[in-house]
Amino acid sequence: MQQKIINTQDLAFQLFELHEVEKVLGYERYAEHNRETLQAALDLSLKVAAEEFAPHARLVDEEEPRFENGRVEMRPEVKKALDVLRDTGLMAAGQDFERGGMQLPAAVAQMCVGMLKGANVGTQGYAGLTIAAANLIMAQGSEYQQQKYAEPMMAGRFFGTMCLTEPQAGSSLGDLRTRAEPQDDGSYRLFGNKIYISAGDHELSDNIIHMVLARLPGAPAGVKGISLFIVPKILVNEDGSLGERNDVALAGLIHKMGYRGTTSTMLNFGEKDGAVGYLVGEPNNGLAAMFHMMNEARIGVGLGSVMLGYTGYLHALDYARDRKQGRPVGEKDPDTPQVPLIRHADIRRMLLTQKACVEGGLALCLQGAMLVDEKKHGATDEQRKLAAGLLDLLTPVIKSWPSQFCLEANSLAIQVHGGYGYTREYPVEQFYRDNRLNPIHEGTHGIQGIDLLGRKVSMAGGKFYQELMGRIEATIGEALGIERLVPCADHLDRAVKAMAVATDTINAEKANGNVEKALANASLYLEAFGHTAVGWLWLRQAIKAIAGLEGKGAQIAEFYEGKVKCCEYFSRYELPKVVSLAGLLGAVDTTALGMQDSEF
Amino acid sequence: MQQKIINTQDLAFQLFELHEVEKVLGYERYAEHNRETLQAALDLSLKVAAEEFAPHARLVDEEEPRFENGRVEMRPEVKKALDVLRDTGLMAAGQDFERGGMQLPAAVAQMCVGMLKGANVGTQGYAGLTIAAANLIMAQGSEYQQQKYAEPMMAGRFFGTMCLTEPQAGSSLGDLRTRAEPQDDGSYRLFGNKIYISAGDHELSDNIIHMVLARLPGAPAGVKGISLFIVPKILVNEDGSLGERNDVALAGLIHKMGYRGTTSTMLNFGEKDGAVGYLVGEPNNGLAAMFHMMNEARIGVGLGSVMLGYTGYLHALDYARDRKQGRPVGEKDPDTPQVPLIRHADIRRMLLTQKACVEGGLALCLQGAMLVDEKKHGATDEQRKLAAGLLDLLTPVIKSWPSQFCLEANSLAIQVHGGYGYTREYPVEQFYRDNRLNPIHEGTHGIQGIDLLGRKVSMAGGKFYQELMGRIEATIGEALGIERLVPCADHLDRAVKAMAVATDTINAEKANGNVEKALANASLYLEAFGHTAVGWLWLRQAIKAIAGLEGKGAQIAEFYEGKVKCCEYFSRYELPKVVSLAGLLGAVDTTALGMQDSEF
Repeated sequence: MQQKIINTQDLAFQLFELHEVEKVLGYERYAEHNRETLQAALDLSLKVAAEEFAPHARLVDEEEPRFENGRVEMRPEVKKALDVLRDTGLMAAGQDFERGGMQLPAAVAQMCVGMLKGANVGTQGYAGLTIAAANLIMAQGSEYQQQKYAEPMMAGRFFGTMCLTEPQAGSSLGDLRTRAEPQDDGSYRLFGNKIYISAGDHELSDNIIHMVLARLPGAPAGVKGISLFIVPKILVNEDGSLGERNDVALAGLIHKMGYRGTTSTMLNFGEKDGAVGYLVGEPNNGLAAMFHMMNEARIGVGLGSVMLGYTGYLHALDYARDRKQGRPVGEKDPDTPQVPLIRHADIRRMLLTQKACVEGGLALCLQGAMLVDEKKHGATDEQRKLAAGLLDLLTPVIKSWPSQFCLEANSLAIQVHGGYGYTREYPVEQFYRDNRLNPIHEGTHGIQGIDLLGRKVSMAGGKFYQELMGRIEATIGEALGIERLVPCADHLDRAVKAMAVATDTINAEKANGNVEKALANASLYLEAFGHTAVGWLWLRQAIKAIAGLEGKGAQIAEFYEGKVKCCEYFSRYELPKVVSLAGLLGAVDTTALGMQDSEF
Repeated sequence: MQQKIINTQDLAFQLFELHEVEKVLGYERYAEHNRETLQAALDLSLKVAAEEFAPHARLVDEEEPRFENGRVEMRPEVKKALDVLRDTGLMAAGQDFERGGMQLPAAVAQMCVGMLKGANVGTQGYAGLTIAAANLIMAQGSEYQQQKYAEPMMAGRFFGTMCLTEPQAGSSLGDLRTRAEPQDDGSYRLFGNKIYISAGDHELSDNIIHMVLARLPGAPAGVKGISLFIVPKILVNEDGSLGERNDVALAGLIHKMGYRGTTSTMLNFGEKDGAVGYLVGEPNNGLAAMFHMMNEARIGVGLGSVMLGYTGYLHALDYARDRKQGRPVGEKDPDTPQVPLIRHADIRRMLLTQKACVEGGLALCLQGAMLVDEKKHGATDEQRKLAAGLLDLLTPVIKSWPSQFCLEANSLAIQVHGGYGYTREYPVEQFYRDNRLNPIHEGTHGIQGIDLLGRKVSMAGGKFYQELMGRIEATIGEALGIERLVPCADHLDRAVKAMAVATDTINAEKANGNVEKALANASLYLEAFGHTAVGWLWLRQAIKAIAGLEGKGAQIAEFYEGKVKCCEYFSRYELPKVVSLAGLLGAVDTTALGMQDSEF
């Protein structure tokens, strides 16, 4: 199987050597798994990704879903691929055995989804939204709701959506206006308009379960007055059979730059009598309920970015090895044959940058997934709390860093292809368009920056920030004992120390009440923090690789040598940027904040 | 006229205050012009851009040219806009009065084209290629060729193309294979296949004049064996009337990510008896002839990038002022009204970054255009040679810096729009797609980097590099006398000094024969050099703005204050990156160069 979705050697290295995912098999939940069952799930997902998802990725970009006769029409390959996926059971990769799931560790379950994203993010969207909505019901819904709605979703019979955004309330969810009126039978009737509802309508599944944020009568203003509802497209009878069409209308489609395969819809709730909905969890607790799932959703976004970057990198690598163009610097004889692109220093630099971004980003996302399991299943309460705190801290970074730098990797993949890369005859331009969504949805960069610097870094008195930096310093200490890695360790050490100074200064500014000033460059802080975290994960990879270099065959030795060189690259080329940025951040500069509207 | 193509106040500032374009009116060539005639040409171009080009920019992206029945079919708005443009005479903005041109100074002529690019780069492409091809004939062709081909092109009756690339020879032009066989009548017959020929076929003009690179029999291998030919689509009779169809066949269209309005074609020359062609200039001198025009063509690419960035910035600014979303940091009361996006620090930062890139990039491109005139019309031979050398030095920077950073500005324009920015219902996503071409065509970043570091920096014993740095230091000296600008001057000084150290080290490495190693990070050198140059242009803008602040009314004072703040922003946020990059460059690092194929 010739696939350019992932380097399976790297995936095995990251899961089993770097993150030692087999450790979680010690948790009772995963006792029935072993390395073979985990590998089998990964292999299955990669096979489905390569055989069923990748082949029509371009097709759903070219022929995006259309709004015809009040229905969403799309290419038949989408349904076929999703049917195959449903039949594998991978829709419920992370769910309990007793619910029909595979009960896979979080890192493996995330990767099963991630490979589908790398292969065809448009088609995966339908499954991804369904899994997310089902997870939300499993976490927040009643037993009745879980059986009635979530189980058919995990089985792939019903699909799902998340209905948050409204035209007047984008990132500012507290301003949403959809209202829910209580009925005598305990249900509600919803009235309102939602936009950017991915997978909001289609004919791919028997039913669509919308998870809708709305306000109850008399609810407090802002984020504290939002409740969560299940609103099925078709009402479900007591016996699980389908009943009447609910009052949810497709108002139109939104046309995007990329991610075109996943239709983006405008939905009207309650054009007639109101859309029937069912409250999930407590009244006015909807945003908290939704955010309960946010860590995993945001890891999913980060991993999606990584996988788009990763497939672009593999395509660029393949092209650079294959395409002959030009001659080495200094070769003056035009009669010598042209050399492969990869022979040129600048092409190697662009490939190495991509490798650093996508493999570093993958390590970061998997780190997050490992914390998800430790948070839920760790041996002690203290361990679980620590994992939960670290996960909270890292979540904005995991969401944002890949969205920024794996998009940059996609741009470099185009550049390696030259003019061909800019054409729709090659796939890399689509990855670039697809990936541009990721810095926007599930909380923009700006919002993630404020989340990190305004809340996460200082929560619990900065305990989790200190814990993370302590772990990074421990890795630095370990690397200082390995001669080749001393310069890398030094680079990372300088970054950590510079971030510490900047963080202290900003925290002092916040403590003095200058919150707006302190947070003015939160996005840049997020970037510097992300680089530090990825630098850490590269150093950890290099330590494992150097250990692995001992007594291995040539092919494996080359793989490990590439890992060490990539760590050296990231340390030398990228980590100094942290020091530079931290200097700026530590000055608590207000140049941009001070710019008046009329001065632009 | 509500247009979002350019801030006319900024344009006037840059042309008349910063670059003092009226100085060139002292050259005999421009003696008949005055500020009013220059302004009239700019106003005319902006009017055509806003009224005829901008309105169908989205349309030609959505309905790109199609290959039907052997012809290229496209939206009728394209021809209408180009007809209006032709009737204004702007196609020959920079050409001699006696050839029917406007004889405008280079900076003004470039801006007349630039505004069309910002309005609709797809439609402008047809005119742009025609102007470029006509310029080439005017510079290199015989008087007969100028009259027969170039004059109808400048009048907009014939359009033109540049036919360089072949499938097996992208950037490596020395490997092209199209051959030209001499005929008894002094003409040639051409045989070969060309790809990526923008505007290669259409029904917009009476004829299309292809400028084709090909090899004569027995020509030396490589770049020294390439000749330049005029190959008309339809042969032109002695009296200027159209004759028979030439043997040039449209083989197909290439579909691009952006820039869709300008059709990209594959052309076959000589499917039957050979395409009739006429040699331009000396045999085997074709590449030199083509490169003679390269400075101006590359300024055009840089300016095109700037103008796409500029229109994106103005759209983002407008949106940020209009769209209400969220509340200021620290505002807890959800009953307070939402504030405009521009109220948020991160939005201001993103707008200021865009302003720094697009206004800084514009200043850089106009600097290049000023040198074009000084090179041709400067008072003394020494002055002309100095200008020519500085122009050669700056050309790769003018081409590349905007392609990189104004593309980044386009990405930020999307980000300011949030989810809306990602949809095709708003224009910013198209600017981003359109602009992604610019780092590729007319020489990729990698090639520009090698041109700069491998040739330009060290040519004439580094004379022009020293001259530029001397001019930058003079600006720094001037700024040090203005209290507010001292910190900016210090930042630029540090950048210049760091670049000097890095440049010396790299030159020494080259002198030692380690050319490949010395040039391994040429792209990063290009980036650092570009930042230094733009930092210089920002400091010059700030000096002019501070002088202008004295005794001006409030509206103008705000404009100047914005200029000074933007200089402060660029100096504080961007120039430290030069110091960081220069440290890396000075280490002559070979991490990427040393990465073996098998280690990826």
